[in-house]
Amino acid sequence: MPLNQQILLDNRPTGEAMASNFKLVSGDTPALKDGEVLVRHHYLSLDPYMRGRMNESKSYAVPQALGQVMQGGTAGEVVESRSPKFKTGDQVVGMGGWQHYSVVDAAQPGALRKVDTTHVPLSHYLGAVGMPGVTAWYGLVKIIAPQAGNTVVVSAATGAVGSAFAALAKARGLRAVGIAGGPEKCKYATTELGFDACIDYKLHQDAASLSKAIKQACPDGIDGYFENVGGMVLDAVLPLMNAFGRIALCGMIAGYDGKPVPLSYPALILMSRLKIQGFIVSEHMEIWPEALQELGTLVATGKLKPRESVAHGLAAAPDAFLGLLKGKNFGKQVVKLI
Amino acid sequence: MPLNQQILLDNRPTGEAMASNFKLVSGDTPALKDGEVLVRHHYLSLDPYMRGRMNESKSYAVPQALGQVMQGGTAGEVVESRSPKFKTGDQVVGMGGWQHYSVVDAAQPGALRKVDTTHVPLSHYLGAVGMPGVTAWYGLVKIIAPQAGNTVVVSAATGAVGSAFAALAKARGLRAVGIAGGPEKCKYATTELGFDACIDYKLHQDAASLSKAIKQACPDGIDGYFENVGGMVLDAVLPLMNAFGRIALCGMIAGYDGKPVPLSYPALILMSRLKIQGFIVSEHMEIWPEALQELGTLVATGKLKPRESVAHGLAAAPDAFLGLLKGKNFGKQVVKLI
Repeated sequence: MPLNQQILLDNRPTGEAMASNFKLVSGDTPALKDGEVLVRHHYLSLDPYMRGRMNESKSYAVPQALGQVMQGGTAGEVVESRSPKFKTGDQVVGMGGWQHYSVVDAAQPGALRKVDTTHVPLSHYLGAVGMPGVTAWYGLVKIIAPQAGNTVVVSAATGAVGSAFAALAKARGLRAVGIAGGPEKCKYATTELGFDACIDYKLHQDAASLSKAIKQACPDGIDGYFENVGGMVLDAVLPLMNAFGRIALCGMIAGYDGKPVPLSYPALILMSRLKIQGFIVSEHMEIWPEALQELGTLVATGKLKPRESVAHGLAAAPDAFLGLLKGKNFGKQVVKLI
Repeated sequence: MPLNQQILLDNRPTGEAMASNFKLVSGDTPALKDGEVLVRHHYLSLDPYMRGRMNESKSYAVPQALGQVMQGGTAGEVVESRSPKFKTGDQVVGMGGWQHYSVVDAAQPGALRKVDTTHVPLSHYLGAVGMPGVTAWYGLVKIIAPQAGNTVVVSAATGAVGSAFAALAKARGLRAVGIAGGPEKCKYATTELGFDACIDYKLHQDAASLSKAIKQACPDGIDGYFENVGGMVLDAVLPLMNAFGRIALCGMIAGYDGKPVPLSYPALILMSRLKIQGFIVSEHMEIWPEALQELGTLVATGKLKPRESVAHGLAAAPDAFLGLLKGKNFGKQVVKLI
């Protein structure tokens, strides 16, 4: 069996996550049992939700276990199979974690999914045509449920979720406004991703100033907001929400490091009769086929051109992940293993 | 025409509302035009939402105009009619405001509603079988949308909304837990209103302590929460919400005096995949008939025994209203004029 390398969660962060929370180890891959397949990972997906799971405290999933391989999405190739469902050479997406190889019980529903790379590059199945894309789809279609003429806004606009959100919003004829960090990302949001406007939050010291800038980009107010970050950005958006506005709450990255970030004016939820809904897309598997079909078509037809930040080699995963938490990535963050 | 007395909003509060914000004036009632009726008010309704409208700032309705009669619900009797729709002696509910008489255009839909006091006392049409009762109904039935076995919680539990909430919840077989201020109210909540338990928030200095007490009364967590107050109580409830819990946001009385009260841990909305929805029941007139029918039956059959705090005479309205904002009322606060 081939030699495997893995990155484990060695200890939990106290405050900010650090490289020393992780540990690289080596070992043999186990021999396959009947019904199992061995997958060689070409790409690892790095996603903000992983930070929440590094904490011991209550999050939307059980915490990442200490001393175990960091969990996460992977795209790769079947290199050995003892299951009739998969054959060597199949390109597959799964939850293989931060390692070169994973052994998967092919009988487990949804554990491994074959993908077609004719029109969509393999790595995009971790981003635009994968969990982040479906996340954008669910928040926009099922929670924001936009009506004609609506203005929708998304934070972390150039990330994997934000990019897909823009394409999905424009496909529905909506006004789409992004919030991102820095002039380069904002330019990319409007010139490449199709956003009608993009606000650079780094130009603003406080929520009031940021709110004023967002307001200029949303002359008719905001009907739907897709929240990836929380904190000051949410405080800035809330006063601009139109009556009966909807907020899809997908990420609160601002609070991941243990400092709880309050919401300054919750009374606005009542005053503007807003609906705020938190969600995690893996709990809504019933919408994945429809969402993946639309996202795949958008990518294949060039209407969604996902950008990637690619780190190289398994050992680079921790630093790439810590950079992602600070917004250093530009588009979907992946780690390329081969 | 009879002499009228009115209470106007004379000036807006800066911080806490005070008696000096109001002004009592006298004058003749105007002569009726065709299609109008003159109503003599027997009861005025005092409700927390009025405080929000005293501010100039954005609220869910246009602000109460300065120098005008304080707006509000009224129950009374038609004493003169130039409309074929109403005759002298009809008992009616409307939005007559803080005054003895109001002139109503009977052609305006919903402006005046005839009520039957055979089984339901007139004043209850301002409370349990009126706007507060329908508010409880909408929050429970349409937002919380409870399932069998659910635990639901309401703050300001012995108020007009909370009392109705308890009866509606018990009629559906739910576990109903109240939060109220003081031992007398809590005892009343469990012995008279049907709550399974009631927590006295005044025994707790902070959200953590209050949360622990609520948790003991909700061993299976909280599936639905009806929020009338905000602030520390909301902070205490949020960590106890079960996954996919629903929060109907009806009042944020804690923030009415201009000090914004933050929500300490908004990330919990995401972690527990909650839905929080603000609403104002006058925007959902389509559900009123169904709600009023159920509430009227609950009162007529003794399953909902609404308690009232009655102030006497128009001049007592401001003090009664200020007391309501501090929780000094016990049950629905009305002003009896005759």
